[in-house]
Order: sequence, then C-alpha cells, then structure tokens
Amino acid sequence: MKTLKRLSATMLLLIVFVFCSGTYSQEIKISDNTRTCLDCHTSLHPGIVGEWEKSAHGRMAPSAAIKKQGMERLVSAEKIPEALLDNVVGCAECHMINPEEHKDSFDHADFSVHPVVTPKDCSVCHSTEAMQYEKNIMYHAYGNLMNNPVYSDLVTSINGIQTFENMSLTIAPPDDRTNADSCLSCHGTMLKVSGTETRETDLGEMDFPVIEGWPNQGVGRINPDGSKGSCASCHGRHAFSMETARKPDACSRCHKGPDVPAYPVYKVSKHGNIYSSEEKSWDFGAVPWTIGKDFSAPTCATCHASLLTDTEGNVVAERSHQMNDRLYKRIFGLTYAHPHPVSPDTTLIRNKAGLPLPTELTGEPVEGFLIDQAEQDKRKGAMQKICLSCHSTGWVEGHFDRLENTITTTNRMTLTATEVLMEAWAKGAANGLDKKESIFNEGIEKKWIEQWLFYANSTRFASAMSGADYGAFDNGRYYLSKNIQDMIEWLKLRVKDKEKK
Amino acid sequence: MKTLKRLSATMLLLIVFVFCSGTYSQEIKISDNTRTCLDCHTSLHPGIVGEWEKSAHGRMAPSAAIKKQGMERLVSAEKIPEALLDNVVGCAECHMINPEEHKDSFDHADFSVHPVVTPKDCSVCHSTEAMQYEKNIMYHAYGNLMNNPVYSDLVTSINGIQTFENMSLTIAPPDDRTNADSCLSCHGTMLKVSGTETRETDLGEMDFPVIEGWPNQGVGRINPDGSKGSCASCHGRHAFSMETARKPDACSRCHKGPDVPAYPVYKVSKHGNIYSSEEKSWDFGAVPWTIGKDFSAPTCATCHASLLTDTEGNVVAERSHQMNDRLYKRIFGLTYAHPHPVSPDTTLIRNKAGLPLPTELTGEPVEGFLIDQAEQDKRKGAMQKICLSCHSTGWVEGHFDRLENTITTTNRMTLTATEVLMEAWAKGAANGLDKKESIFNEGIEKKWIEQWLFYANSTRFASAMSGADYGAFDNGRYYLSKNIQDMIEWLKLRVKDKEKK
Amino acid sequence: MKTLKRLSATMLLLIVFVFCSGTYSQEIKISDNTRTCLDCHTSLHPGIVGEWEKSAHGRMAPSAAIKKQGMERLVSAEKIPEALLDNVVGCAECHMINPEEHKDSFDHADFSVHPVVTPKDCSVCHSTEAMQYEKNIMYHAYGNLMNNPVYSDLVTSINGIQTFENMSLTIAPPDDRTNADSCLSCHGTMLKVSGTETRETDLGEMDFPVIEGWPNQGVGRINPDGSKGSCASCHGRHAFSMETARKPDACSRCHKGPDVPAYPVYKVSKHGNIYSSEEKSWDFGAVPWTIGKDFSAPTCATCHASLLTDTEGNVVAERSHQMNDRLYKRIFGLTYAHPHPVSPDTTLIRNKAGLPLPTELTGEPVEGFLIDQAEQDKRKGAMQKICLSCHSTGWVEGHFDRLENTITTTNRMTLTATEVLMEAWAKGAANGLDKKESIFNEGIEKKWIEQWLFYANSTRFASAMSGADYGAFDNGRYYLSKNIQDMIEWLKLRVKDKEKK
Repeated sequence: MKTLKRLSATMLLLIVFVFCSGTYSQEIKISDNTRTCLDCHTSLHPGIVGEWEKSAHGRMAPSAAIKKQGMERLVSAEKIPEALLDNVVGCAECHMINPEEHKDSFDHADFSVHPVVTPKDCSVCHSTEAMQYEKNIMYHAYGNLMNNPVYSDLVTSINGIQTFENMSLTIAPPDDRTNADSCLSCHGTMLKVSGTETRETDLGEMDFPVIEGWPNQGVGRINPDGSKGSCASCHGRHAFSMETARKPDACSRCHKGPDVPAYPVYKVSKHGNIYSSEEKSWDFGAVPWTIGKDFSAPTCATCHASLLTDTEGNVVAERSHQMNDRLYKRIFGLTYAHPHPVSPDTTLIRNKAGLPLPTELTGEPVEGFLIDQAEQDKRKGAMQKICLSCHSTGWVEGHFDRLENTITTTNRMTLTATEVLMEAWAKGAANGLDKKESIFNEGIEKKWIEQWLFYANSTRFASAMSGADYGAFDNGRYYLSKNIQDMIEWLKLRVKDKEKK
Repeated sequence: MKTLKRLSATMLLLIVFVFCSGTYSQEIKISDNTRTCLDCHTSLHPGIVGEWEKSAHGRMAPSAAIKKQGMERLVSAEKIPEALLDNVVGCAECHMINPEEHKDSFDHADFSVHPVVTPKDCSVCHSTEAMQYEKNIMYHAYGNLMNNPVYSDLVTSINGIQTFENMSLTIAPPDDRTNADSCLSCHGTMLKVSGTETRETDLGEMDFPVIEGWPNQGVGRINPDGSKGSCASCHGRHAFSMETARKPDACSRCHKGPDVPAYPVYKVSKHGNIYSSEEKSWDFGAVPWTIGKDFSAPTCATCHASLLTDTEGNVVAERSHQMNDRLYKRIFGLTYAHPHPVSPDTTLIRNKAGLPLPTELTGEPVEGFLIDQAEQDKRKGAMQKICLSCHSTGWVEGHFDRLENTITTTNRMTLTATEVLMEAWAKGAANGLDKKESIFNEGIEKKWIEQWLFYANSTRFASAMSGADYGAFDNGRYYLSKNIQDMIEWLKLRVKDKEKK
Repeated sequence: MKTLKRLSATMLLLIVFVFCSGTYSQEIKISDNTRTCLDCHTSLHPGIVGEWEKSAHGRMAPSAAIKKQGMERLVSAEKIPEALLDNVVGCAECHMINPEEHKDSFDHADFSVHPVVTPKDCSVCHSTEAMQYEKNIMYHAYGNLMNNPVYSDLVTSINGIQTFENMSLTIAPPDDRTNADSCLSCHGTMLKVSGTETRETDLGEMDFPVIEGWPNQGVGRINPDGSKGSCASCHGRHAFSMETARKPDACSRCHKGPDVPAYPVYKVSKHGNIYSSEEKSWDFGAVPWTIGKDFSAPTCATCHASLLTDTEGNVVAERSHQMNDRLYKRIFGLTYAHPHPVSPDTTLIRNKAGLPLPTELTGEPVEGFLIDQAEQDKRKGAMQKICLSCHSTGWVEGHFDRLENTITTTNRMTLTATEVLMEAWAKGAANGLDKKESIFNEGIEKKWIEQWLFYANSTRFASAMSGADYGAFDNGRYYLSKNIQDMIEWLKLRVKDKEKK
C-alpha cells in the first residue's frame, strides 16, 4: 500500500511535469534583439513581460502560425517577412518594425525603438483584420467627433471650463488634456511627438521622445506612423489576447453608458446571465469558435466580430473587424437612430440643413449617405444567422419586429422633445440654431440631449439585447416620457415670465 | 525514465477517458422522437442542443431520477407517465407533451409540436414546484400589473407615445410591442396564437404558428395552454439549470432597479463580496445545498428558494418556489412597504378609497387583504433561521430591528412626499385623484413616483441586504430627502404663479 | 486493458485521497476551549465554522506561522503569547482574548466570551498591520464624520425625518438606527453595551449582552475595548481571507458611489477588464505578491495596500495598512480635492473661516494641516513605482499630468458652483453661512453638494484609474457642466421673483 502510494505520487509529479512544462516538444526561439530588451525590461517591467511570456505571441513563431490551415489560421497575411518568421513575436518584433514611418522612433540602446505600436505594425501579420478595421466606424472615431462642428460643440459644452460673473455663464474652449481624459480616452487622442526629454535612468542618462496625447488606447487614435486606432483597445497589452477580446469586459470601458450602455445591458440580459453563470467552463481560446461546444451564450464578440461555426464545422459568421457588417441600423442615435452610414468617415455626411448629421433635426434619415435597404437586409441577415443558432425563426422575427418598433417609438419620442425645444427657440425662451448659438448649453437643451443620447439610446440597447430594466426604469422609457414633461414645464415657466414682461 | 514517462502519459489518458466520458456505467437513452428532432436541429440550433446535452435533462432518465431518495430527489411528482420514464428528457418529451392543451401546437414533420414549453408541461415531473409557484406573486405578474387600473395607468404614462401641440402634451395608449419590450419583458406577455405562417426552409415549405407576444420568458407569462409563467425565467433554456438559478445573475435581468435594485444591492453587500471572491470553489450542483460545505455566503436563491441543510444534514430551509413564505413584509412599496398580500393575485385588494392598492394613500396597510402578525412572524422566523446559520441571535435581531426602523422611516418619508403632492392637488397646481385625472403624468407626480418606487425601495433593499451605498447616496436616503425639497420648491414656484394671477 | 483501467481508477482515487486530505503531513491542533465552542457551534453556525475550517487561521498554528522568514511571514508580532502558539487560531483564541478590556465580555458556558473581535485582538499576532491602520484615515471614519459639525449637518439633512406643514419643511435629528443603516454602515457605529438579555436557547436559558450599534463592520467602528475599526471590513469573517481583501469586490460595499465610485470605475478600467478576464488564473494567496507571475493587472489592494515584488524578488511596494502613504492627494473632495491631511483625525483641521474643512470655501488648501510638497512627492513616487512595473516613465508621467489637470479643472468647476451658491445666499434666494443656517438643505445647496460630492469626485476617480465613461457621461463632466447651468437657472427664476415683489 505504502509503495503504491509513493508510486502514485511520483507519477502525479511526472504527469504534472510533462503537461505543465509544455516546452518539451516545442522550442521557444527569441530573437537577439528581443533578448537584449528582456535583459533590462524583465526586471523593469515585470507585469508586461509576464503577460507577454504567457501570450500566443510569446510562445509561437510566425513560421508555425502561418502553417495552420483553414479556419484555424490566425495570421492572415499571405507572406511574412523572412526576418520575422522564426522567432516568437517579442519586444523588438513590434517596437522596432517600420522604424522610418514612426515619428516616435528614437535611439534606445543602439536600437531604433518606437513606444507606440499601431495597427499598421500589427498588419504585417494580421493584414486582413487591419483592412477590415479601416471600415469600422471606430477607426474614424477621432475625426468623427473632433472634425464634426456639431459634435465638437457638444464637447466644448461638456469639457470647457465654465465661469460665472454678473449672473451669466462663460464657457472656455476645452484644453487638450481634459479632452484626452474624457471623450478622447475612448475615441483616441492625436499623438504628436513634440520633442525629446533626457531622463536619469538606472543605466545613466537617456533620451526619450515626448509624445503629446500619450498614453492613450482609444479606438480611433491618430498614430505617429499615420495610421489610426489601437489593437490594444480590445486585445489589451501585452497579452494581445483573443480571449480577453472575446469576453464582454473588454468592451466595458467605453460602452458603460449612459450614452451607449451596451455592457450593462448585456450583463443583465439572459445572454449575460448565462455568461456570468457558465463562462468558467467555456473555451475562449478555440479557433474557430464553435457554438454549443465552446460556449452556449453569446458575448459581445460572438455577435459583433468572431468567426463562428456550428458543431458540424459550417461557418455561421465570418470573422469581422469591420463589425458594422452585421449591423443594419445604428441604434446609437445622432440624434435619431438611422441606417448605418455608407462611409465610416461620418464627417462627409450633410443633411438638408447643411449639418454633418445622419438625420434631419426632425428625424428623417439623410439620403445618399446611409446604406440602402438591400445592404440593410444583408447585414440584418448576417446577424440573424447567429441568433438562429439558438432560436427559432419565429423567435428571431418576433425579437427584431419588437426592436424595429422600439426604434420607431424612441425616434418619435425624440421628435416630440425636439418639437418642444424648437418651440422654446421660437418663443425666445432659449437661443438655438436660428440665432446661430450653441444648441447644447441651456437648461432645456441639456434635457433634449438626454432624451436621445441617454434615454432613447438606453431603451434601444435594452431592446436590441433584451436587457429589460434598461428599457423600463433604468434610463429607459420612464425617463423618456418624464423628460418631455420636464421640458414642457421648463418652457411654461419661462414663457409665463416672458408674457408677464 | 522514458518508459515511466510513457506509462504515466498512457495512464493519464486512461484516467481522463474513464472519468470524462462519463458514459461507461450509465447509458443515455434518447427517445426516437427526440432523435428525429436532433437529426435536423443539431445543426440548425447547435447552441441549445449543446446546452441540453450537458444538462441533467440530457443525461438522466426520469426512471433514474425518481429513484433518488429523500432530499436528493429533484423529481417531485409521485408518478411519472410510463412513456416518459426510460428516455432522457429531450426535445420531444417537453415540446410534444400535452398537445391538446397547447393552442400553439402545430404539425411539424408529422409531429404535434408546441414551441412554448410551460410550467404545466414541467409539472409532469416537477409538480410540487409548479404548485408552489402558483402561490408566488410572480405567477400573477401579468394580471397584477395589467388588470390593476392604477398600475396600468402608470404603464400608460411611461409607455404611451407623447405628442406636443399648442404647448400641451397628449399621451396615446401604449402599443402591445412597447409593453412587451418593457414592463412585460419581466412581468410576462400574453401569448396568443393569431394565425399560421408558411416559411421556406432547408427542408422545403413548412407552416408555423404565429404567436403574438412571442418571444417572452416573463415570470407571469400567459401561456397558450392556459398556464402562467415560465420556468426559463430563472432556469434558462435549454440547460434548465439549477446551478444557473442558484447564482445571483439569474435574478439580475428583472431586479436591476432602480425600482427593485435587489441585484446591485446584493453585489456590493458583504454576502455578494464573498460570493464574487469565492464562488469558483463552491458547489452549485449539490442537492441538498449544505451551508458551510457547498458554499459560505448566500446567493439570492439561498435565502429565497433553495433547500438548505447544515453540515449534519438537518434541514435549515425547505425548498420553496412560492418564495414569499420566507418574506414577512413586501419592501417593494406600492406605494408604502406593507405586510405581504394574502393572495398572490393582488388585483383582489381594495383599500378604503376603493383602489386596488395594499395601502391607503396615507400609508395604512389595507386590512383583511394582507397577512396577519402570526403569519408575518412565521415567515420572518423562516428567513431568520437561515441568517442564524452564520450569525448570532444578537446580530440577527439587530439587523432586523434596523430593517424595521428603515421600513418605518422610508414609509414616513413617502407620506411626507404624498402630503406635498396632495397639497399641490388641493391648490390646483397639479390635477390628481380629486379631478379623476392620472396621478402619474405631471412634474410633481413624477417626483412622487420616484420617492417610493426608486428611493424608498432602494433604501429598503439596501437595509434588508446590507448594501450600504444604496441606502445612502446611490438612490438612497440622499435622494429620499432631496426629493421632498424639490417637490416643495416645484410647488412653491407654481403657487406663487397662481397667487399672482 | 480491463486490469489497467481498474488500476488507473485505483491510483486516481489514491492520488485524490493523498492530495485532498491535505492532513497527512501536518497536524491541526485545536485548543480545548475552541473544541468546546465547536461542540455546539458547528451545528449552530455551520456557515462560519465552514469558512474558518478552510481558512489559514483554521489550518496553521502561530508557532508555524511565526517561523516563516522574510517577506513570507504574515505574523508581524515579534512574540506571540505562549498560550496561543501551538493551537490553530480558533473561536476561543479570538473571542476570549483580552477579556478584561472588552465591555462586551459575558459569561457563556463558563467562559468569558466577547462577540466583537477588534483590531486590538488581532494585533496580538498582527501588530504592525494594526499600528499602520491607526494612521489610516478610515480608522477615524466615525469621528471624522460625526464629530465634525459641518459633515454632521450633512448627515442630518440626509437622514433626518422630514415633515411638511404650512408649505414648509421641518427636518428632525436623525435617529441612531438610521445613521447605523446608512453612513455608519461604512464609517462604523459606536458599539455600546447597554444591558443584558436572557434568551431561551437549545441549551436552556442563557444571558447575552445587548450591544447598541450591533451588528456593524464599518472601518472606523468604535469598539467595546476602546479600539477602533474592524478587520472584517475588508477581510470578511470567518475566513479572514487575504485573498478576499486582494480582490476588488471587498472594496465595493463602501466604494460604489456616486460619492466615491472607485469600484465601478475600476471595473470598467483596462485594469478591471483584465482582472475580470483573467483573474481565474491568478494566485491571490501568494506572499509576497509577484507582479507578472501571480497576477498581471492590479486590483485595489495591489496599488493601495499589498506587499509587491518583481519577478526577481525586489520589493516594489511594502505592505501598508495605512494606505494613504501611497496617496499624495485626496481626490475625494471636501469640498475640493486637496493634499492628504497630516493627521488621519481630520476634526483637528481649521480653515480661515474656522470650519473643520481641509480647504477654504473658495478652494485654497488649508495651510499647516495638509502634507507638504516633499511628502506629496514621496507618496506619489511610491504609487508611481507600482505603475512603472508595467508602464514606461513617459506613460506614467503622461497619466499623472492628466490627473493633475483634472484635479485643477474639477476644482475650478466646483469653485464656479460655489460662486453661484454664494450669489444665491447674497441675493437672499437661499439661506446659508451668513445667516448661520444649514448649507445643505435648499434646492440650490443640494445641487452644489452634487457638484463636488458626485460629479467632481467621479470625474477625478475616472481620471485616476482610467475609467473613461465615469469622467464623461456617467456622473462625470457632462453633469459637472450641466449642473452649473441648472444652478444658475434655479437662481435666475428666484431672483426674478424677488425683483418683482
């Protein structure tokens, strides 16, 4: 008995050794350049080195990755430069690639190193994903906000320092650091190398570039190599993990709400409930991702991005970094929900009033700039195909019929709020478009913003993802209806005042 | 060494094989009917088939389940129809049972199939749970909302389309799809078969029933077989998992707040903290559920539904699908917190003003319709017995004493708000009960709603479950007190106006 | 084959037995006194006994714990009383220690037992932690709130019962149970033994102390032995788990917001995203806690309390129960963000107006009572050293530069709100400091509270921890700017009224 016990312990140790070491059959080759980086940075930055060591990048060379066939292949480039093939993807492979294009490149221990790694750098191996992402509206998130005079005025009304004198309010233009800390935290900052700084380090004096707008990992960041975006927005750094991007938490930083409450709505939806309850037993690393085998309820990535198959290996959805190719309508209202724009650069749009908005102020979608019915049907079909993996046609049609109704009714409630606002402008109780003044900085205008940006959006997200409470009391229909009441009461108080004078 | 290594690997494989296959000693018998379903639906609906395959239903036949003795037995029916005994509980067993009673039954591949599975269907094996659930106030959630003229007026004020003309507001009756997408998403819709639809499918043209109100999994859904509710509300589909229902996420969809913020309050409570921190090591599948062995802090189900034992096997709480048999007061105020109603059908209640409300407008509980002191004590005792599994008598008494005080003070703060509202009605600043107008659609009335529905409720839930912030700043006492101030200021502005005229 | 299968099953059983029993090599010695407790309480309180059995306290005697060397040692006392050395830390060891000092000690089954275990009790083994905690501002949380007349007035305005008569509002002083259920739930109650109660128990009549303010686990609880605080606030009971305290959920009960939204901000930050995505594979029990090996993104404890090393064993941060030794500014504004107070007892502070506030009403930090620049730099350096484990110097400097700007701008926006308030007081539209009236109980004053307590704080927490949405729309800059607009509109309506009279 005792012998058997000793034997079993020995064997367990062996088993553990064999299976955990994981290195006995596959050699990890690290480039000399990366080794030089690691010599110092392993102790300087243990957190990111640790992440990288456990990552796919840190454990597999592109030469092996590119040999994978069919759907299992994660490297989409046809060819990878010879020099990158045989070593794992380490510090040097990403931070020293394309040095000439990088305005943030600097001389560091005799290497030309750039701190900011960009989608263009990643596209050396992941070209298809980079190309798809250029069609993603997030790719243009910086310009779509900052180069659109209407939205840019909204930014000023929120981020500008306000001062009070003689009973009146002055709003200064917002400073760059405030914008970087709020809107551009998600939209992305503009990174500009503004000079060089000498720092005392453990290895003596060293020069480093000074980069305005850094740090930032916004989805539409303007990069020093001319590219846009940051893969780290969703994939994190330095694990660059598909698993992380497949989990809903990855989306939470920018989709918390109340403007785009996708994450909280998902969390309380039945899909989110099942995720929270079961995700520990799901396989977030499987490629392709098989419905019913690897997971049993969708996360954000499932419906919006991932390559999905059924248990027989049939493709249910192709991998997409464009994402809106599965979205037929943009339920994020500006100011009304509308068919998705044709171009992800939404500054190109002009409505009848000449404003760069996808709808008229009275709700009609702007012609010519939004996708047509055929494209809408195609995208809706792509999304519904995923739904149909678990739900019957009747279920799916019922769900989308309700969503369509919700889009209509929330747009209608936004129109009513807009009519109250226009009455306020007409009666001189507030100053708006007709006086060429900001439409975002008076009491009733703030309420109007909330009508579409918070309440109508929340109600639509709740409808799209079945997150009931967000369509009822939590920024939903309760507030959508109450807010109109509030706007009218606001107006009545002022109109009476005016009439008395 | 090498031999040993090879041997150990072989043995590990064997071990894994023997323990993971899980089928060597127990055969999974699937009925012919279910096999026919699976022939197509395995590829058509891989998600739900995958869920089902891993479920208890998919792995154990009722003949085995019914043999379990004592507390381990999950099948409560005394007898199960012969035809259902020997096969696992598959598609056909649920979707083809009781075909005559199901108005949604339709001819599908030569079977009579109904899409909507109901508590009556489940009661074939789980009869006790179905009977208990009929006493649950949630069972009546549809009627309690829609057939109560007061609450139904609240629904209209929230869900009706509002239009603005000549400085005044019109509210249209809400449409069915909006109700289904908001209140009835949790309360349950009324399912009605309104016709038949022919669809082109992979297998040619097929007919399907058109079901109004579908999809829905609300707790009080009116089903096509005359029954009410949906077991999937809490147990999900198609795993029908006890584990899911035992986890707090199951409750989050409808208890997110701000009206019934049970889930967020729980999550920040000490109980919720321990759950989040430790749940990975707990056993959510154990039957009975043993305190201190299977888990060390309660979830929603622990206190409100589950069969619990101590480590010596003594019953601490019997399984309950009635749930309110452990609740002595209804802290969800309508408009005041009150002893639980005797009948779960609350439309039967009439207060002195003739309204179907459990309290008078001034807070007194309505006599005759609410449980008496003896029943309250019994229910409070049942709940406290669970608390006492981890807390001393002094602790538990202190906690409930504080809750009782919070019920009293929040009711008092609701009364003050009601007095301000009644003054507004009396002074003609708003139109209410005396003018037989809606009590939910003017500015001060909206504030009054928030006083009891959001702030008093949140404060009480925070008190009941020790979720501090929700009783202080997050919709708690800060707003409870501020709101009264706001209501008075609202009134004063209007009264001055009136006086000046 | 069959033989091999049987053998492998046998071996697995053996392996499981050997590794799960966990007791073969180490004997768990339980004191006679604790055994006596367990005789009854194992069945009376299975939940806490179960927690304890799995805890470090329940599995290791101090004699073993004190032998651990260097950073691995969790017992900080130089010497531990002989009597406590050899048995594990059980019921009696904590609930019977220091009986004379405990006013809550009572005769229980012939033992002198005290229900309330305090930091002084814990300090017998964990002396350094207890001493550090006395410098933590939380240690003084009771007095800092209740003995500060300004904050205490805020408590009254929130917790006092309000009554309405003749169009005016009266606020009564809040009762103890309401305070205990809201503010003091986190700040800590004052525990007072007010008498003795006889209860019928399973073992016959027994006497128990009646303790006012019980139960409570607030961070600054006033204990019956004269000490302050409760280790269970963060470590829970009765696992007293380091793992629990290292997870962010431990902090959620009191840092949910909207006043101090540290937890929700963290959860949507990139750090929080990575935590949610990866924490299952992290080691929360490692001592010391190694960055990059045991975890790859910080939790609350990582930055604010834990002993951290890099992968080469160098100390990155010393363990701290003072916590503010890593915090250079207090971004929780009262009413403005300010350098941390020198003394954790903030009632000692006096500003120029003689008020116990760390800043003037116009924002200037109060001289002499707040830490100087050198101390600020030291603390900032301690925090930044942790950041630098994963981020470059340029990254960290950019981040803190942005935070500093956010502190400046949010303070400026608070000043503007204060100027509007002072104008309201000056014009007689509200009654404030000049009339020696409460500054917290009129409409415009409530808005002013929200400016600094909710919106400026939220914006700063979002900036400090990169939780974007909380700095933009979710109680962030949108509300910070809108609220000033609201305050001015409130004032204008009242001023017009006054002028007309």
